[in-house]
Amino acid sequence: MSPPDDIMDATWCALCRRGYADLTMQAIADETDKSKAALHYHYDSKQELLESFLDHAADRFLERLHKAAAEAETPAAQLSAVVDAAFSPPVGDDRESVSAALLELRAQAPHQPAFRERLCEADDAFCDLLAAVLAAGVESGAFRADLDPQRAARTIVTFFDGSRLRQVSLDEDPEMARTLLESYLDSAVYAEGQR
Amino acid sequence: MSPPDDIMDATWCALCRRGYADLTMQAIADETDKSKAALHYHYDSKQELLESFLDHAADRFLERLHKAAAEAETPAAQLSAVVDAAFSPPVGDDRESVSAALLELRAQAPHQPAFRERLCEADDAFCDLLAAVLAAGVESGAFRADLDPQRAARTIVTFFDGSRLRQVSLDEDPEMARTLLESYLDSAVYAEGQR
Repeated sequence: MSPPDDIMDATWCALCRRGYADLTMQAIADETDKSKAALHYHYDSKQELLESFLDHAADRFLERLHKAAAEAETPAAQLSAVVDAAFSPPVGDDRESVSAALLELRAQAPHQPAFRERLCEADDAFCDLLAAVLAAGVESGAFRADLDPQRAARTIVTFFDGSRLRQVSLDEDPEMARTLLESYLDSAVYAEGQR
Repeated sequence: MSPPDDIMDATWCALCRRGYADLTMQAIADETDKSKAALHYHYDSKQELLESFLDHAADRFLERLHKAAAEAETPAAQLSAVVDAAFSPPVGDDRESVSAALLELRAQAPHQPAFRERLCEADDAFCDLLAAVLAAGVESGAFRADLDPQRAARTIVTFFDGSRLRQVSLDEDPEMARTLLESYLDSAVYAEGQR
Protein backbone atom coordinates (compact mmCIF):
# COMPACT_ATOMS: atom_id res chain seq x y z
CA MET A 1 0.00 0.00 0.00
CA SER A 2 1.44 3.37 -0.89
CA PRO A 3 1.56 5.80 2.02
CA PRO A 4 -1.24 8.38 2.33
CA ASP A 5 0.09 11.55 0.73
CA ASP A 6 -1.36 13.86 3.36
CA ILE A 7 0.55 12.08 6.13
CA MET A 8 3.78 12.29 4.13
CA ASP A 9 3.24 16.02 3.51
CA ALA A 10 2.49 16.52 7.20
CA THR A 11 5.68 14.65 8.18
CA TRP A 12 7.64 16.89 5.83
CA CYS A 13 6.14 20.02 7.44
CA ALA A 14 6.60 18.75 10.99
CA LEU A 15 10.23 17.76 10.33
CA CYS A 16 11.02 21.17 8.84
CA ARG A 17 9.32 22.97 11.71
CA ARG A 18 10.65 20.92 14.64
CA GLY A 19 13.62 18.88 13.45
CA TYR A 20 14.12 15.17 14.05
CA ALA A 21 14.81 15.26 17.78
CA ASP A 22 11.48 16.91 18.65
CA LEU A 23 9.36 15.07 16.12
CA THR A 24 6.36 13.25 17.63
CA MET A 25 3.34 11.46 16.14
CA GLN A 26 1.21 14.22 17.71
CA ALA A 27 3.25 16.92 15.95
CA ILE A 28 2.67 15.14 12.63
CA ALA A 29 -1.05 14.70 13.34
CA ASP A 30 -1.24 18.44 14.14
CA GLU A 31 -0.24 19.17 10.52
CA THR A 32 -3.20 17.13 9.17
CA ASP A 33 -6.94 16.93 9.85
CA LYS A 34 -6.33 13.43 11.27
CA SER A 35 -6.01 12.37 14.89
CA LYS A 36 -2.89 10.75 16.31
CA ALA A 37 -4.95 7.52 16.56
CA ALA A 38 -5.66 7.72 12.81
CA LEU A 39 -1.92 7.99 12.15
CA HIS A 40 -1.37 4.86 14.21
CA TYR A 41 -3.94 3.09 12.00
CA HIS A 42 -1.43 3.46 9.14
CA TYR A 43 1.85 3.20 11.07
CA ASP A 44 2.58 1.20 14.20
CA SER A 45 5.35 3.55 15.27
CA LYS A 46 7.11 6.82 14.47
CA GLN A 47 10.01 4.66 13.29
CA GLU A 48 7.80 2.91 10.73
CA LEU A 49 6.30 6.22 9.58
CA LEU A 50 9.78 7.70 9.10
CA GLU A 51 10.92 4.70 7.05
CA SER A 52 7.93 5.25 4.80
CA PHE A 53 8.74 8.97 4.71
CA LEU A 54 12.30 8.31 3.57
CA ASP A 55 10.96 6.20 0.67
CA HIS A 56 8.53 8.96 -0.17
CA ALA A 57 11.19 11.71 -0.06
CA ALA A 58 13.53 9.62 -2.23
CA ASP A 59 10.75 8.91 -4.75
CA ARG A 60 9.94 12.61 -4.93
CA PHE A 61 13.59 13.56 -5.43
CA LEU A 62 14.21 10.88 -8.08
CA GLU A 63 10.99 11.70 -9.94
CA ARG A 64 12.15 15.31 -10.27
CA LEU A 65 15.52 14.18 -11.61
CA HIS A 66 14.04 11.71 -14.11
CA LYS A 67 11.54 14.33 -15.28
CA ALA A 68 14.39 16.83 -15.79
CA ALA A 69 16.38 14.25 -17.78
CA ALA A 70 13.36 13.25 -19.90
CA GLU A 71 12.68 16.87 -20.88
CA ALA A 72 16.23 17.49 -22.17
CA GLU A 73 17.27 16.28 -25.60
CA THR A 74 21.03 15.73 -25.58
CA PRO A 75 23.19 14.02 -22.94
CA ALA A 76 24.89 17.36 -22.15
CA ALA A 77 21.52 19.06 -21.68
CA GLN A 78 20.33 16.09 -19.59
CA LEU A 79 23.38 16.24 -17.30
CA SER A 80 22.88 19.95 -16.81
CA ALA A 81 19.14 19.49 -16.13
CA VAL A 82 19.72 16.68 -13.62
CA VAL A 83 22.38 18.68 -11.74
CA ASP A 84 20.04 21.71 -11.75
CA ALA A 85 17.18 19.63 -10.37
CA ALA A 86 19.37 18.03 -7.68
CA PHE A 87 20.59 21.42 -6.48
CA SER A 88 17.14 23.06 -6.55
CA PRO A 89 14.72 22.77 -3.65
CA PRO A 90 11.29 21.27 -4.44
CA VAL A 91 8.92 24.13 -5.30
CA GLY A 92 7.35 25.71 -2.28
CA ASP A 93 9.71 24.13 0.25
CA ASP A 94 12.10 26.05 2.41
CA ARG A 95 15.42 24.62 1.25
CA GLU A 96 17.31 25.23 4.48
CA SER A 97 14.77 23.52 6.71
CA VAL A 98 14.37 20.59 4.32
CA SER A 99 18.13 20.05 4.08
CA ALA A 100 18.54 20.33 7.85
CA ALA A 101 15.75 17.83 8.56
CA LEU A 102 17.06 15.33 5.99
CA LEU A 103 20.61 15.65 7.35
CA GLU A 104 19.33 14.83 10.83
CA LEU A 105 17.68 11.70 9.45
CA ARG A 106 20.87 10.74 7.58
CA ALA A 107 22.93 11.24 10.74
CA GLN A 108 20.72 8.60 12.41
CA ALA A 109 21.67 5.92 9.86
CA PRO A 110 24.32 4.21 12.06
CA HIS A 111 21.62 3.60 14.70
CA GLN A 112 18.82 2.84 12.20
CA PRO A 113 19.65 0.09 9.69
CA ALA A 114 16.23 0.52 7.99
CA PHE A 115 17.04 4.20 7.36
CA ARG A 116 20.44 3.32 5.95
CA GLU A 117 18.99 0.70 3.62
CA ARG A 118 16.61 3.28 2.14
CA LEU A 119 19.30 5.95 1.87
CA CYS A 120 21.57 3.49 0.02
CA GLU A 121 18.80 2.55 -2.41
CA ALA A 122 18.11 6.20 -3.21
CA ASP A 123 21.81 6.93 -3.63
CA ASP A 124 22.22 3.95 -5.99
CA ALA A 125 19.29 5.19 -8.07
CA PHE A 126 20.79 8.72 -8.22
CA CYS A 127 24.19 7.26 -9.28
CA ASP A 128 22.55 4.99 -11.88
CA LEU A 129 20.66 7.87 -13.47
CA LEU A 130 23.83 9.99 -13.67
CA ALA A 131 25.90 7.07 -14.99
CA ALA A 132 23.32 6.39 -17.73
CA VAL A 133 23.38 10.04 -18.86
CA LEU A 134 27.19 10.09 -18.72
CA ALA A 135 27.45 6.83 -20.72
CA ALA A 136 25.07 8.22 -23.38
CA GLY A 137 27.27 11.32 -23.64
CA VAL A 138 30.43 9.26 -24.08
CA GLU A 139 28.61 7.31 -26.80
CA SER A 140 27.48 10.49 -28.58
CA GLY A 141 30.90 12.15 -28.33
CA ALA A 142 29.65 14.98 -26.10
CA PHE A 143 31.68 13.70 -23.15
CA ARG A 144 35.31 12.58 -23.04
CA ALA A 145 35.97 9.20 -24.61
CA ASP A 146 38.08 8.14 -21.61
CA LEU A 147 35.36 9.03 -19.07
CA ASP A 148 34.37 6.28 -16.63
CA PRO A 149 30.61 6.95 -16.18
CA GLN A 150 30.40 5.13 -12.83
CA ARG A 151 33.33 7.02 -11.32
CA ALA A 152 32.15 10.37 -12.67
CA ALA A 153 28.65 9.69 -11.29
CA ARG A 154 30.13 8.95 -7.87
CA THR A 155 32.20 12.10 -8.00
CA ILE A 156 29.08 14.16 -8.70
CA VAL A 157 27.08 12.61 -5.84
CA THR A 158 30.02 13.10 -3.46
CA PHE A 159 30.10 16.80 -4.42
CA PHE A 160 26.38 16.96 -3.93
CA ASP A 161 26.54 15.37 -0.48
CA GLY A 162 29.41 17.66 0.50
CA SER A 163 27.29 20.61 -0.53
CA ARG A 164 24.35 19.37 1.57
CA LEU A 165 26.49 18.95 4.67
CA ARG A 166 28.17 22.35 4.20
CA GLN A 167 24.85 24.08 3.61
CA VAL A 168 23.43 22.79 6.89
CA SER A 169 26.49 22.89 9.14
CA LEU A 170 28.28 25.99 7.79
CA ASP A 171 25.37 27.86 6.16
CA GLU A 172 27.32 27.76 2.89
CA ASP A 173 25.38 28.84 -0.20
CA PRO A 174 24.83 25.68 -2.35
CA GLU A 175 25.82 27.81 -5.35
CA MET A 176 29.43 27.53 -4.12
CA ALA A 177 29.55 23.74 -4.54
CA ARG A 178 27.49 24.05 -7.71
CA THR A 179 30.14 26.34 -9.24
CA LEU A 180 32.97 24.02 -8.18
CA LEU A 181 31.09 21.07 -9.66
CA GLU A 182 30.73 22.96 -12.97
CA SER A 183 34.52 23.39 -13.06
CA TYR A 184 34.93 19.67 -12.50
CA LEU A 185 32.48 18.91 -15.32
CA ASP A 186 34.34 21.33 -17.63
CA SER A 187 37.73 19.77 -16.95
CA ALA A 188 36.85 16.10 -16.58
CA VAL A 189 33.52 15.35 -18.31
CA TYR A 190 32.81 17.54 -21.34
CA ALA A 191 34.80 16.74 -24.46
CA GLU A 192 36.95 19.57 -25.85
CA GLY A 193 34.85 22.13 -27.68
CA GLN A 194 31.60 20.43 -26.70
CA ARG A 195 30.56 23.01 -24.18
CA MET B 1 41.52 28.75 30.37
CA SER B 2 42.09 25.75 28.15
CA PRO B 3 39.68 22.89 28.77
CA PRO B 4 40.82 20.01 31.01
CA ASP B 5 42.07 17.30 28.63
CA ASP B 6 40.55 14.45 30.58
CA ILE B 7 37.06 15.95 30.27
CA MET B 8 37.55 16.43 26.53
CA ASP B 9 38.73 12.81 26.15
CA ALA B 10 35.77 11.64 28.19
CA THR B 11 33.37 13.65 25.99
CA TRP B 12 34.92 12.07 22.91
CA CYS B 13 34.41 8.56 24.39
CA ALA B 14 30.87 9.27 25.59
CA LEU B 15 29.87 10.74 22.21
CA CYS B 16 31.26 7.72 20.35
CA ARG B 17 29.54 5.32 22.71
CA ARG B 18 26.13 6.97 22.99
CA GLY B 19 25.76 9.48 20.19
CA TYR B 20 24.63 13.09 20.60
CA ALA B 21 20.97 12.44 21.41
CA ASP B 22 21.75 10.32 24.50
CA LEU B 23 24.71 12.33 25.74
CA THR B 24 24.39 13.53 29.34
CA MET B 25 26.77 15.20 31.79
CA GLN B 26 26.53 12.00 33.85
CA ALA B 27 27.58 9.87 30.86
CA ILE B 28 30.64 12.12 30.39
CA ALA B 29 31.47 12.01 34.13
CA ASP B 30 31.24 8.20 33.98
CA GLU B 31 34.17 8.20 31.52
CA THR B 32 36.41 10.09 34.02
CA ASP B 33 37.31 9.76 37.69
CA LYS B 34 35.40 13.02 38.28
CA SER B 35 31.88 13.49 39.59
CA LYS B 36 29.14 15.19 37.61
CA ALA B 37 29.41 18.07 40.11
CA ALA B 38 33.11 18.42 39.23
CA LEU B 39 32.19 18.68 35.54
CA HIS B 40 29.78 21.47 36.40
CA TYR B 41 32.62 23.29 38.14
CA HIS B 42 34.23 23.68 34.70
CA TYR B 43 31.11 23.96 32.53
CA ASP B 44 27.76 25.48 33.43
CA SER B 45 25.90 23.30 30.96
CA LYS B 46 26.25 20.44 28.49
CA GLN B 47 25.87 23.06 25.78
CA GLU B 48 28.92 24.95 27.06
CA LEU B 49 30.93 21.75 27.40
CA LEU B 50 30.09 20.75 23.82
CA GLU B 51 31.15 24.17 22.50
CA SER B 52 34.47 23.67 24.22
CA PHE B 53 34.62 20.14 22.84
CA LEU B 54 34.11 21.35 19.26
CA ASP B 55 37.05 23.77 19.69
CA HIS B 56 39.12 20.94 21.11
CA ALA B 57 38.21 18.50 18.28
CA ALA B 58 38.98 21.18 15.66
CA ASP B 59 42.33 21.98 17.30
CA ARG B 60 43.24 18.30 17.35
CA PHE B 61 42.27 17.86 13.68
CA LEU B 62 44.12 20.99 12.54
CA GLU B 63 47.22 20.14 14.58
CA ARG B 64 47.43 16.78 12.80
CA LEU B 65 47.13 18.47 9.41
CA HIS B 66 49.74 21.15 10.18
CA LYS B 67 52.11 18.52 11.54
CA ALA B 68 51.65 16.44 8.37
CA ALA B 69 52.36 19.51 6.20
CA ALA B 70 55.41 20.50 8.26
CA GLU B 71 56.98 17.05 7.90
CA ALA B 72 56.74 17.03 4.09
CA GLU B 73 59.28 18.90 2.00
CA THR B 74 57.67 19.82 -1.31
CA PRO B 75 54.20 21.31 -1.95
CA ALA B 76 53.13 18.09 -3.73
CA ALA B 77 54.26 15.98 -0.77
CA GLN B 78 52.56 18.42 1.60
CA LEU B 79 49.26 18.22 -0.27
CA SER B 80 49.43 14.46 -0.24
CA ALA B 81 50.29 14.39 3.49
CA VAL B 82 47.48 16.80 4.42
CA VAL B 83 44.90 14.81 2.42
CA ASP B 84 46.20 11.59 4.03
CA ALA B 85 45.90 13.09 7.51
CA ALA B 86 42.41 14.46 6.84
CA PHE B 87 41.17 11.07 5.65
CA SER B 88 42.84 9.09 8.46
CA PRO B 89 41.19 8.65 11.84
CA PRO B 90 43.16 9.86 14.88
CA VAL B 91 45.22 6.95 16.20
CA GLY B 92 43.28 4.70 18.54
CA ASP B 93 39.87 6.09 17.66
CA ASP B 94 37.14 4.11 16.03
CA ARG B 95 36.66 6.07 12.82
CA GLU B 96 33.03 5.16 12.28
CA SER B 97 31.88 6.19 15.74
CA VAL B 98 33.89 9.41 15.63
CA SER B 99 32.49 10.39 12.24
CA ALA B 100 28.95 9.53 13.30
CA ALA B 101 29.19 11.56 16.51
CA LEU B 102 30.70 14.57 14.74
CA LEU B 103 28.04 14.44 12.02
CA GLU B 104 25.34 14.50 14.68
CA LEU B 105 26.94 17.64 16.15
CA ARG B 106 27.21 19.22 12.69
CA ALA B 107 23.54 18.44 11.99
CA GLN B 108 22.67 20.52 15.09
CA ALA B 109 24.30 23.66 13.66
CA PRO B 110 21.02 25.25 12.42
CA HIS B 111 19.69 25.14 16.00
CA GLN B 112 23.03 25.99 17.67
CA PRO B 113 24.67 29.20 16.41
CA ALA B 114 27.63 28.68 18.75
CA PHE B 115 28.29 25.26 17.16
CA ARG B 116 28.05 26.72 13.67
CA GLU B 117 30.48 29.53 14.50
CA ARG B 118 33.09 26.99 15.65
CA LEU B 119 32.50 24.71 12.65
CA CYS B 120 32.97 27.66 10.29
CA GLU B 121 36.21 28.69 12.00
CA ALA B 122 37.60 25.16 11.71
CA ASP B 123 36.55 24.93 8.07
CA ASP B 124 38.18 28.27 7.27
CA ALA B 125 41.41 27.09 8.89
CA PHE B 126 41.32 23.83 6.87
CA CYS B 127 40.71 25.79 3.64
CA ASP B 128 43.49 28.27 4.48
CA LEU B 129 46.02 25.50 5.08
CA LEU B 130 45.13 23.81 1.78
CA ALA B 131 45.14 27.11 -0.12
CA ALA B 132 48.62 27.95 1.24
CA VAL B 133 50.01 24.56 0.15
CA LEU B 134 48.31 24.91 -3.26
CA ALA B 135 49.66 28.46 -3.74
CA ALA B 136 53.18 27.28 -2.86
CA GLY B 137 52.85 24.51 -5.46
CA VAL B 138 51.73 26.94 -8.16
CA GLU B 139 54.72 29.11 -7.26
CA SER B 140 57.16 26.17 -7.46
CA GLY B 141 55.69 24.86 -10.73
CA ALA B 142 54.48 21.58 -9.20
CA PHE B 143 50.84 22.59 -9.66
CA ARG B 144 49.14 24.04 -12.71
CA ALA B 145 49.94 27.68 -13.37
CA ASP B 146 46.22 28.47 -13.92
CA LEU B 147 45.14 26.87 -10.61
CA ASP B 148 43.05 29.06 -8.29
CA PRO B 149 44.26 27.91 -4.82
CA GLN B 150 41.12 29.13 -3.01
CA ARG B 151 38.75 27.34 -5.39
CA ALA B 152 40.81 24.16 -5.41
CA ALA B 153 40.95 24.21 -1.59
CA ARG B 154 37.16 24.54 -1.45
CA THR B 155 36.76 21.68 -3.91
CA ILE B 156 38.91 19.45 -1.69
CA VAL B 157 36.97 20.29 1.51
CA THR B 158 33.66 19.73 -0.32
CA PHE B 159 34.88 16.27 -1.37
CA PHE B 160 36.00 15.64 2.16
CA ASP B 161 32.63 16.64 3.64
CA GLY B 162 30.82 14.54 1.04
CA SER B 163 32.94 11.59 2.07
CA ARG B 164 32.13 12.13 5.74
CA LEU B 165 28.40 12.27 5.12
CA ARG B 166 28.49 9.21 2.84
CA GLN B 167 30.58 7.25 5.33
CA VAL B 168 28.07 7.81 8.12
CA SER B 169 24.78 7.67 6.22
CA LEU B 170 25.60 5.03 3.56
CA ASP B 171 28.47 3.15 5.25
CA GLU B 172 30.61 4.01 2.21
CA ASP B 173 34.33 3.27 2.57
CA PRO B 174 36.16 6.66 2.74
CA GLU B 175 38.69 5.18 0.31
CA MET B 176 36.05 5.63 -2.42
CA ALA B 177 35.97 9.43 -2.08
CA ARG B 178 39.72 9.44 -1.50
CA THR B 179 40.27 7.72 -4.88
CA LEU B 180 37.90 10.12 -6.64
CA LEU B 181 39.69 13.05 -5.03
CA GLU B 182 43.04 11.72 -6.33
CA SER B 183 41.59 11.71 -9.86
CA TYR B 184 40.53 15.32 -9.39
CA LEU B 185 44.00 16.27 -8.16
CA ASP B 186 45.59 14.48 -11.14
CA SER B 187 43.42 16.24 -13.69
CA ALA B 188 43.03 19.70 -12.15
CA VAL B 189 45.86 20.36 -9.69
CA TYR B 190 49.15 18.63 -10.61
CA ALA B 191 51.08 20.17 -13.49
CA GLU B 192 51.75 17.84 -16.47
CA GLY B 193 54.56 15.39 -15.70
CA GLN B 194 54.80 16.54 -12.07
CA ARG B 195 53.22 13.47 -10.58
